Amino acid sequence: MTPRKIIIDTDPGQDDALAILLALGSPELEVLGITCVAGNVPLPLTIRNARLVCELAGRRDMKIFAGCERPMVRDLVTAEIVHGETGLDGPDWDEPSMPVQDIHAVDWLVEVLMAADDGEITLCPVGPITNVAMAMVREPRIIPRIGQIVTMGGGYFVGGNTTPAAEFNVYVDPHAAAVMYRSGVPIVTMPLDVTHKALMSPEWIESVRTLGSDVGRKAAAMMSFYGRYDMKRYGERGGPLHDPATIAYLLEPGLYGGKDVFVEVETHSEITMGMTVVDYWHRLEREPNCHWISEVDSDGFYKLIRGRLMNLPAKS
Amino acid sequence: MTPRKIIIDTDPGQDDALAILLALGSPELEVLGITCVAGNVPLPLTIRNARLVCELAGRRDMKIFAGCERPMVRDLVTAEIVHGETGLDGPDWDEPSMPVQDIHAVDWLVEVLMAADDGEITLCPVGPITNVAMAMVREPRIIPRIGQIVTMGGGYFVGGNTTPAAEFNVYVDPHAAAVMYRSGVPIVTMPLDVTHKALMSPEWIESVRTLGSDVGRKAAAMMSFYGRYDMKRYGERGGPLHDPATIAYLLEPGLYGGKDVFVEVETHSEITMGMTVVDYWHRLEREPNCHWISEVDSDGFYKLIRGRLMNLPAKS
Amino acid sequence: MTPRKIIIDTDPGQDDALAILLALGSPELEVLGITCVAGNVPLPLTIRNARLVCELAGRRDMKIFAGCERPMVRDLVTAEIVHGETGLDGPDWDEPSMPVQDIHAVDWLVEVLMAADDGEITLCPVGPITNVAMAMVREPRIIPRIGQIVTMGGGYFVGGNTTPAAEFNVYVDPHAAAVMYRSGVPIVTMPLDVTHKALMSPEWIESVRTLGSDVGRKAAAMMSFYGRYDMKRYGERGGPLHDPATIAYLLEPGLYGGKDVFVEVETHSEITMGMTVVDYWHRLEREPNCHWISEVDSDGFYKLIRGRLMNLPAKS
Amino acid sequence: MTPRKIIIDTDPGQDDALAILLALGSPELEVLGITCVAGNVPLPLTIRNARLVCELAGRRDMKIFAGCERPMVRDLVTAEIVHGETGLDGPDWDEPSMPVQDIHAVDWLVEVLMAADDGEITLCPVGPITNVAMAMVREPRIIPRIGQIVTMGGGYFVGGNTTPAAEFNVYVDPHAAAVMYRSGVPIVTMPLDVTHKALMSPEWIESVRTLGSDVGRKAAAMMSFYGRYDMKRYGERGGPLHDPATIAYLLEPGLYGGKDVFVEVETHSEITMGMTVVDYWHRLEREPNCHWISEVDSDGFYKLIRGRLMNLPAKS
Repeated sequence: MTPRKIIIDTDPGQDDALAILLALGSPELEVLGITCVAGNVPLPLTIRNARLVCELAGRRDMKIFAGCERPMVRDLVTAEIVHGETGLDGPDWDEPSMPVQDIHAVDWLVEVLMAADDGEITLCPVGPITNVAMAMVREPRIIPRIGQIVTMGGGYFVGGNTTPAAEFNVYVDPHAAAVMYRSGVPIVTMPLDVTHKALMSPEWIESVRTLGSDVGRKAAAMMSFYGRYDMKRYGERGGPLHDPATIAYLLEPGLYGGKDVFVEVETHSEITMGMTVVDYWHRLEREPNCHWISEVDSDGFYKLIRGRLMNLPAKS
Repeated sequence: MTPRKIIIDTDPGQDDALAILLALGSPELEVLGITCVAGNVPLPLTIRNARLVCELAGRRDMKIFAGCERPMVRDLVTAEIVHGETGLDGPDWDEPSMPVQDIHAVDWLVEVLMAADDGEITLCPVGPITNVAMAMVREPRIIPRIGQIVTMGGGYFVGGNTTPAAEFNVYVDPHAAAVMYRSGVPIVTMPLDVTHKALMSPEWIESVRTLGSDVGRKAAAMMSFYGRYDMKRYGERGGPLHDPATIAYLLEPGLYGGKDVFVEVETHSEITMGMTVVDYWHRLEREPNCHWISEVDSDGFYKLIRGRLMNLPAKS
Repeated sequence: MTPRKIIIDTDPGQDDALAILLALGSPELEVLGITCVAGNVPLPLTIRNARLVCELAGRRDMKIFAGCERPMVRDLVTAEIVHGETGLDGPDWDEPSMPVQDIHAVDWLVEVLMAADDGEITLCPVGPITNVAMAMVREPRIIPRIGQIVTMGGGYFVGGNTTPAAEFNVYVDPHAAAVMYRSGVPIVTMPLDVTHKALMSPEWIESVRTLGSDVGRKAAAMMSFYGRYDMKRYGERGGPLHDPATIAYLLEPGLYGGKDVFVEVETHSEITMGMTVVDYWHRLEREPNCHWISEVDSDGFYKLIRGRLMNLPAKS
Repeated sequence: MTPRKIIIDTDPGQDDALAILLALGSPELEVLGITCVAGNVPLPLTIRNARLVCELAGRRDMKIFAGCERPMVRDLVTAEIVHGETGLDGPDWDEPSMPVQDIHAVDWLVEVLMAADDGEITLCPVGPITNVAMAMVREPRIIPRIGQIVTMGGGYFVGGNTTPAAEFNVYVDPHAAAVMYRSGVPIVTMPLDVTHKALMSPEWIESVRTLGSDVGRKAAAMMSFYGRYDMKRYGERGGPLHDPATIAYLLEPGLYGGKDVFVEVETHSEITMGMTVVDYWHRLEREPNCHWISEVDSDGFYKLIRGRLMNLPAKS
C-alpha cells in the first residue's frame, strides 16, 4: 500500500509533538514536511520544537519549514500558561541541530500542492490556520489540489478553552480559519467536543514512560506537564490530548464518529471572536462544509498512540 | 409559612402553560400576577393563552397583564413551528372570558415593585425578557426591590435551539436579556443545558392524561403536541419541558445543581446574536452575575409536576 | 391659525434651553409638554434645567415630565465637558420651584398620543431618543399618531462629535435611535452636517445679551459658556447651536435644505457605535426613512432666534 | 539627484492607469516594479491593463508582477460599473505582449524589500491593500524597510463611494487595510476627502487629448469614460481622479494639505465594513498612524499630470 501523503502544519506544543510522533511512527503516512506557525509559543520556538521532535524520532531528514510569525489580521496571542515558556516544557531537551528549509512555509505549501495531483495531499493543521489560509489567498489554485484537511480546532458542545466562546487555535487566527472553512476543501474537524472525551490517564502516561525508549520517556514527561493545566481547570483526573486526534483519525477513522455540518467562524464580535458556530441541528439552510467529530473510542485512541510510539527508535 | 410572592412573565406556549399550572398548584407560591409578552406567538395570543390556562386552573381571579408586543430593538420572531398557530395547540379550547387588567404590564411591574419591600418579590420570566427590561429602564429603582429572578433561557453546553448559537427567549430580545444580566439582580438561569437533561417520557404524559381532571387531559394534550418538534429534530424519545423548570426550582431547589458564573449576551454580531456567553470556567476576570443551572433530578422534576397538577380542580 | 402641537423631548443642556425658549417664544407652536431624559447631564439635572428654562420664560404652567434616567441598553454617558457640571453652566440660576408632573414621561407620551388624532402631534427629540423609543416599544399604536419627528442628532459629512463616528445624542442611546429610524414615522433630522454650518458669532451673542431682558442676559451667558468647547476643538470663531435647529425648521422650513435618504444606526460595532449611516447617494436599494438636512440660511436662523426671544417676558 | 524608488501596487482601472503614466513620465521617480491585485476588475484583467499602460508609455521593460486574485478574508467585489468590463474601457486597445514576471507579487515585495536598505523604498498602493498586507504577514521584517506608504483609499468627510460608509479600495479588503494601518509604517493617505476636491474638467480632458501623442489620446479617452459614473451620481461637471493623487504627492507634496491622525478600519460590522474611522479631532487617546490629506491645489494637480504625460513618447 502506498502511504498517504500528509503535511503537518503546527505550533508545537506538547500535544503537537505527540501528533508528529504519532505520524512519524505510522508507516501508513508519508509526512512530506512540517510547516511551523506562531501559536502556542512564538514562531522561533515552534520551529525549534518541531526540530527537537523530529530529532527525537530519529528523523533529521524531515523537511521543516518556517511559516508565519503572526496571524493574518489580529495580534498574536500565545499560550505559555498551558505549554510552559518553551512550548515543550516537561523533559530536558538539548538544542536541536537539524536544518530548517530555506523556503517560507507558505511558498512551499503552494509549490508542493501545485506540483501534486488533485487530491493527492492531505493537510493536518493543528495550530492556528495562518499558513494554510495565507497559501490559499496567495494561490487559490491550490484549493482543488488539497485532498482533505483534517484539523484540530474549535468547539461547540463544550464552549471554548481560551475565551468562553473560542478554542485557542481558532481564536488566535479566526480570519484564517474563516478562509479555510469557506474554501470548499473537504474538512474533518477534531474539536474540543471530541478531545475532551478522551482524557489521558496517569496509568497511560506511565505506560508510555516505561516503553524503554527516549521517545517514551520524553513523551511521558511532556504529557505530565501538559495535562496539569486542564486537570486543574476542569478538575478531571486527566487532561485532553488535542492534536494527535487528527493523525489518529487518518490512521483509524473507525475510532471516531461525527456529522456533516455547516461551520462558520465568528469574526465580527469581540466577545465571541473565533467561535466555531456549528449548525449541528441543521437550522440554517447551508450546505455542510465540514465533518465535525464528536465521538471517540478513547481506549482505542490511547492504545493506538502508545503502539505507534513503539515503532520509533529507542535512542534518539 | 407565608407563601413566596412571584410574578410570572410569559409568552404561553405549552411549556409556559405548564409552568403556570405548576405555580398555581403549589401552595408555597403566591402568584401576584401574570404579565404577558410577545414571543412564542404574538401578544394577543399569549394574553389569550394565559387566560385559558388560568381558567383551566379555576383561577379566574388571577391578574393578567398585557405587556410589550415587540422586542426592545429587533423585529419580533415567533415560534409557531414549535407551538402551533395558537401557541397552545393540542387540546380543544373554548375562548377565554376572564378579564385582562387595564394597566400595561411594564407599568404594573414598576408599580407593584415600588410598593414592595426590598427583595419581597421574585420574578419568573419564561419568555423574552422585554417586559422586565423595559421596567428596569423605565424605573431603575425597582432593581433592588426584586429579590431574585429565576428565568428560563439561553444555553451554553448544548448550543442554541433557534440559531446555532442562540436559544429562543434570548434570541427574540437579546437587548432585554443583556439589560437583565447587567442589572445586578440575583439571577438563577435554567438554560437548555438543564432542560435538555429532563425529557418528557410518553409514560409520564400518559400518567398526566389519566389524572382524571380537565387539567390532566389538557396538559397531556399540550405536551403531546409540544414534544413532537424537538423529538423529531433531536431524535430523542421525549422532548424537553423548558419553562416549568423555573417554578420547580423555587419549589424544590434541591432537584437542581449549578454554578455561579458571569454571563454576557451577544448583541453585536448577527451569527451569534442572542447567545448567552457563559464564562463557565472563569477565564474572564468578571464577577459572577448568575447561578447557571446544569444538573437536574429528572424523575423528581416530573414527579413534582404531576403531583402539583393534582392540586388543581378536577373540573374547570 | 391653530398653533402646531409639539412635544419637546430634551436633556438640557444650553442648546436645549435655547430650543425651548425659541419654541415658547413662537405663537405658531403649542408646546404640549416637555419630557426630560438623561443625556448631557443626569436626569435630575435635566429636569431641573427644563424647569429653570420654563420659569425664565415665564411659563410656570408648562407640563414637565421626568423620563428615563438611563439608555435602553447601554450605560449612560454624559457631556459635562461641554455643558458644565449642571448642564446649564454660564448664568447664575436660582433653584426652580415649578412642579414636575406625576406621570412618567414615557407613559405620558403614550397617553397623549393615544388621545390625539393621527398626525396631530409633532415630536421634537433633541436629546438621546430613549423616551420616544421606549414609548414606541411599550405601545406601538402611537406610531401612526405621531405626525412627524423633527430631531437633532447624527452626522454624516462631518463625522461625529463624541467618537470619530458618532454624534452625542445617537451615541448615548443608539438602540433607541435605531427604533425611531425603523418606526416608519416621517422624520426630519438636523445633523451636525447642518448645525456646523451655522456658527454663533460673538456679535450675535452680544446682540442677545443686550435685548434688555433676563431671557437675553441668561441666554447670552449660556451661549458664551457653551460655545467655548467647540471653538477650542475646531478652532472656529463660534460654536454651533444644535438643538434650536429643530424648532427653527418647524417655524421656517424655508431656511433649510435637505434630501430624502435612508438612515441606519450602527449598533453592532464598538468603534462605529451610534453612527448614523446615511445612504446619501442612494447606493443601497432602501426606501428613504428620513429627510436629512444639510443646508441652512445661517443669518436667517440666528435672526429668527433673536426675534423670538424678544417675545418672551423681560422679567422672569 | 537620485530618483526615489517606488513600487506601484495597483488594480488598473483608468485612474490607476493615469497614476502609472504620471509616475513613468516623472524622472524624479524610479518605478522598481508594478504589482497587480484584484480589485476594480479581476486579476487577469488588472495584469493585462498594467501591461497595456506600460506598453503605451514605451516601457516594455517594466517589471510587472501578478499578485493576489482575492482579498485576505472576504469575497472579491469588483467595480465594472465604474470602469467598464475590461477596467480600461474608453480607448481601443490591442492586447499587450510584454511579459509578466515569474515570481508572485507578494514574494517579490518581500524579496525586494529584504534586499533594500531601511526606508529605501516607497510603496504606492492604489488598489485593495491585499498584496502589501500579505507581504507584511508573511514577512514582518519588511516593515522597517518600507520608507513610506502613500496610498489612495478611504474617506471621512465625504462618506463612502461603494457603501454609505466605505470607499472601494478599503471595502474590498478591509482586513488588509487594517494590517497596513496597524503596521507602524509612515502612511500618507489620499482619501475621497481630497480626491473629490479636484475634479476633471472637460477642458482639461480635451487638453490631454490634443497633446499630439498616443498617450494623450488614450488617456483622454479613458478619462472621458471613467468620469461619467461619478458625474452622473454626484451631478458634478467632472469626476474625481483618485489614484494619481499618490504620485502627485510624491512629486509635489506642496500641492497638498493634511493632518496627522489615528485611523482605524472597521472590520466588525457589515453596515460600516471597510470604513476608515478617522480620529480627525483627536477624541481618542491614540498615536497618529497616518497623514490624512484633505486639501489640494486642483489646478496644480491637473497641470502636473498633463505636463508629465508630455514626457512620454509620442508613439507607443
